[in-house]
Amino acid sequence: MTRLTEAASGVYVIAATPFTETGDIDFNSCDRMVDHYLAAGATGLTVLGIMGEAPKLTSDESAAIVRHIMKRVDGRVPIVVGASAPGFAQMQDLTARVMDMGAAGVMVAPPGSLRTDDQIVTYYMQVAEFLGETPFVLQDFPLVTGVQISVPALARIFNALPTAVCLKHEDWPGLAKITALRKEGTLNRRISILCGNGGVFLPEEMERGADGAMTGFAYPEMMAGVVENHRKGDMERARDLFDAYLPLARMEQQPGAGLAIRKYIMYRRGILASPALRKPGAPLDPLSRAEVDRLMARLEKRLKELN
Amino acid sequence: MTRLTEAASGVYVIAATPFTETGDIDFNSCDRMVDHYLAAGATGLTVLGIMGEAPKLTSDESAAIVRHIMKRVDGRVPIVVGASAPGFAQMQDLTARVMDMGAAGVMVAPPGSLRTDDQIVTYYMQVAEFLGETPFVLQDFPLVTGVQISVPALARIFNALPTAVCLKHEDWPGLAKITALRKEGTLNRRISILCGNGGVFLPEEMERGADGAMTGFAYPEMMAGVVENHRKGDMERARDLFDAYLPLARMEQQPGAGLAIRKYIMYRRGILASPALRKPGAPLDPLSRAEVDRLMARLEKRLKELN
Amino acid sequence: MTRLTEAASGVYVIAATPFTETGDIDFNSCDRMVDHYLAAGATGLTVLGIMGEAPKLTSDESAAIVRHIMKRVDGRVPIVVGASAPGFAQMQDLTARVMDMGAAGVMVAPPGSLRTDDQIVTYYMQVAEFLGETPFVLQDFPLVTGVQISVPALARIFNALPTAVCLKHEDWPGLAKITALRKEGTLNRRISILCGNGGVFLPEEMERGADGAMTGFAYPEMMAGVVENHRKGDMERARDLFDAYLPLARMEQQPGAGLAIRKYIMYRRGILASPALRKPGAPLDPLSRAEVDRLMARLEKRLKELN
Amino acid sequence: MTRLTEAASGVYVIAATPFTETGDIDFNSCDRMVDHYLAAGATGLTVLGIMGEAPKLTSDESAAIVRHIMKRVDGRVPIVVGASAPGFAQMQDLTARVMDMGAAGVMVAPPGSLRTDDQIVTYYMQVAEFLGETPFVLQDFPLVTGVQISVPALARIFNALPTAVCLKHEDWPGLAKITALRKEGTLNRRISILCGNGGVFLPEEMERGADGAMTGFAYPEMMAGVVENHRKGDMERARDLFDAYLPLARMEQQPGAGLAIRKYIMYRRGILASPALRKPGAPLDPLSRAEVDRLMARLEKRLKELN
Repeated sequence: MTRLTEAASGVYVIAATPFTETGDIDFNSCDRMVDHYLAAGATGLTVLGIMGEAPKLTSDESAAIVRHIMKRVDGRVPIVVGASAPGFAQMQDLTARVMDMGAAGVMVAPPGSLRTDDQIVTYYMQVAEFLGETPFVLQDFPLVTGVQISVPALARIFNALPTAVCLKHEDWPGLAKITALRKEGTLNRRISILCGNGGVFLPEEMERGADGAMTGFAYPEMMAGVVENHRKGDMERARDLFDAYLPLARMEQQPGAGLAIRKYIMYRRGILASPALRKPGAPLDPLSRAEVDRLMARLEKRLKELN
Repeated sequence: MTRLTEAASGVYVIAATPFTETGDIDFNSCDRMVDHYLAAGATGLTVLGIMGEAPKLTSDESAAIVRHIMKRVDGRVPIVVGASAPGFAQMQDLTARVMDMGAAGVMVAPPGSLRTDDQIVTYYMQVAEFLGETPFVLQDFPLVTGVQISVPALARIFNALPTAVCLKHEDWPGLAKITALRKEGTLNRRISILCGNGGVFLPEEMERGADGAMTGFAYPEMMAGVVENHRKGDMERARDLFDAYLPLARMEQQPGAGLAIRKYIMYRRGILASPALRKPGAPLDPLSRAEVDRLMARLEKRLKELN
Repeated sequence: MTRLTEAASGVYVIAATPFTETGDIDFNSCDRMVDHYLAAGATGLTVLGIMGEAPKLTSDESAAIVRHIMKRVDGRVPIVVGASAPGFAQMQDLTARVMDMGAAGVMVAPPGSLRTDDQIVTYYMQVAEFLGETPFVLQDFPLVTGVQISVPALARIFNALPTAVCLKHEDWPGLAKITALRKEGTLNRRISILCGNGGVFLPEEMERGADGAMTGFAYPEMMAGVVENHRKGDMERARDLFDAYLPLARMEQQPGAGLAIRKYIMYRRGILASPALRKPGAPLDPLSRAEVDRLMARLEKRLKELN
Repeated sequence: MTRLTEAASGVYVIAATPFTETGDIDFNSCDRMVDHYLAAGATGLTVLGIMGEAPKLTSDESAAIVRHIMKRVDGRVPIVVGASAPGFAQMQDLTARVMDMGAAGVMVAPPGSLRTDDQIVTYYMQVAEFLGETPFVLQDFPLVTGVQISVPALARIFNALPTAVCLKHEDWPGLAKITALRKEGTLNRRISILCGNGGVFLPEEMERGADGAMTGFAYPEMMAGVVENHRKGDMERARDLFDAYLPLARMEQQPGAGLAIRKYIMYRRGILASPALRKPGAPLDPLSRAEVDRLMARLEKRLKELN
């Protein structure tokens, strides 16, 4: 069983949770989705993330999805599970269950009540104590959590905790944060930095020292392409690809609206049998669908021009 | 089995969750606590509230506590269970379990992301749909939830939903809200209004039309005394009692610090075997204990003067 | 003297405030900036906006800038002045001064403490009362103000207040809001909707019924081009233009960082003599400059391909 | 001319701004108010505070009030002026003006956008730079500002800045903060700590090392009595006094509602000619007046029992 380490890199796709029109989990679509992610270049998957409709699942359903995805992936890539919870008891419970199933680690975002550096550092010290040996990803997403984590606070956390192996970086603006974390002397080791924010800053993030992306953009091939071309030193090609997808990535990046757009795109691409969200979520309205359709058509055209 | 109705009144004590020094649930102390609450005049209990360390419990522990308290109470008073959750699946799950055990209803606070009237009203429409026939208490506690619910929004919710039977009122300042809700024409029926905020505005709240208190002040006898004397029309006596306890109530009312103070007082009064909070909570520090000790001594002296 | 009306349309550029390296106001650069905006197709200017470093100006400096820009514009386009203030006295004062100078109207964002629909509506009723006959723009920018204004609240405000003539729309996500406001029956008249958010949703906003943009993107010609091509019905051309600028617009859209990027671009384009921000603001660091340089070079190349 | 120093102690009353029924400044009431404060034991005054309706004043009115109060006080006690502002230009301007008039120092609360320790520390470094030699009070009031300042952040600020001489302490809960700041080794010198929160924790605050109060409770004699009896070592007497006023202090402590209650009490006591607030503020409604009347009557009775 692989554990997540500081070497995590590439594209960890945040997996959606496919539902049927009547709100049941659609395991067939789930399989197609996993296959699609891996074919598109995913080097890892993150399930039950903030965008994965996790709060709409019972704990039995959560476990069933993790188990199902784990089986389909069959060890080809590591799987990270979102374990953020209002209290440590539930976090510990879920972590124990998914690590037993073979997860590589968990991801923990800070609760919205945290403000000062000390409060944030203390929280992650407690997380690490409750999680024991389980490696974890610190999700730094102020736009959604309301918690701003400074570089000194991150340094105190990562330097003190060997199990804090990866930063899901989605501070906004956040490019300077990557540079600061990669600066000699800030951290006592090189941790993994995987970027979120729907990938809309990925070229700049890679150039500043990120190791890849961890986000749910509906076209993982763009992110894999940017990472790959960055590795080859062909940033012009990386940017050409990125720019082609940017009009769509920008639409997905809208808070709240993003998931419905992602599911609709995956539905249009034949990956999901239905674009349905579980209630109280609603699928994309017709006007928005038309907007996405137009952008998908333009993307196709632009990709042809680029080849 | 009794269901909570719009006639709920008196003192619903928010129950603490007793722990041993090592963090196990202390069911013996739990029994003493229940007996104490009922002897002090509680007309109902609310378990797994925000202050009940609910997030530190696994779901099995939560169920065990509800079951245990239910058995000890043995139908003498109705029991309300806190069911606020990040998603409807967990809320529905917990509600089904505790209603099966014989709970009278559940309590639901709004998630912190809600802002506009429409967002708040829509949320409670969904809550009611997911909870079905289960009556519920709407917890209006902006200081902790960050959500401000206007009188028009409350009116839309209560007027539309027969299962919304009670308001746990702890807006701050909130006296004008009680007056507005009791004004002819605001609501289509008289709902139950039980007040929180540690009871520190109880005399004024009763005079403006509240039906009682729903809060965790460590001396339920004060709240029962105020409610009883208000019923008898003896507000001077009600206020004398209230004033005597106010220096302590004010200390308990401090956000975050309140629970440790309450548990320490219950420990000092011989109700709890230990003042321990489950980790990462910490018991009261010695300096604060000394402060509470002084206030308890002064309370005793003042109560003697009053008799 | 022209007053702002519901017919406002096109591109209202949010003007920067040019400074010298030593922090003085650079009136020469200010003139070049005004000329540049008008040459690029601006149909109006908005000065002293949130992004205009207004809080770093003394009230005498604010007046001097408005007067200077007013003179340079010389009536060619209307000028809106940002008048948001912690209290009505200052708002009224500043409004009286700039209307005397010939401003077309003012812009008012809600203070961050507002939450419920009633609080927001009441606030704008008071604004209108204090401003008298002065027409005003309601700035709806939740990301910065923290205030979410629902469509019903906007409808109550615009329907009640004849002086509320324009919405600076930068809710995010906000496309559905435009559609709702343009729906028959929502408002009692057609108000002006000018969109912010750095222009990153402008094509979709125009198609849903916006009248143009009011934002500070450093290339007003893009916005003018999108508006113009939308008018001509050539949305493919509008989108081609938009897509070319999007990689840069996305960088500018980062909260906090945007102004330094805009000033740097205007400096690179020869409009400003210096990219300096007044203290405590700082100009763009070298790494970020290099990123912007790369994007400017790619923009130039892409624009050539398009012609 | 006296400058505020780390030796500030006793009771700094936050002065209200008296208005006539028609919204003009009532300088006669202002004189009576000043006389009353000094007679009641004030050792300093703080004008244009958050509670002083400062945002409703034009800058000329603000200057007029400071000048008037300064003249009436005539050097008997030092005067601190609230100088919080959205930007440094206005802060610097106002500070220069009031220091010229003879103010002892200014008070600065942090803007609501600050989150991390570094952001807060940097902000006060800039404040100190802009204010030059002017001594200032740091207002630490999270309930209103939304900014939580940790003890380490306070230590960095006070240790670095000789002009940061006083903390207006109104964190809530905040008793442990006083103890931490008074602990050997936290600060490099003993600063002044004056407590706010309407005085509702004053006995405990004094015992933990505070130097007095800086708040607007309508009965400064209570605060002076607590401070004086604490100095004499008679805490029982201090607490008896405190407890007598607590039912009223609790009412004043309600956010938003407090100022109208204070002005009504000062009106009832013959200090203000009118309880009016300037628009859009509203005076106390009749029901609330009756509640305050009852509490004032009970206070009088209780004070007689104590003598």
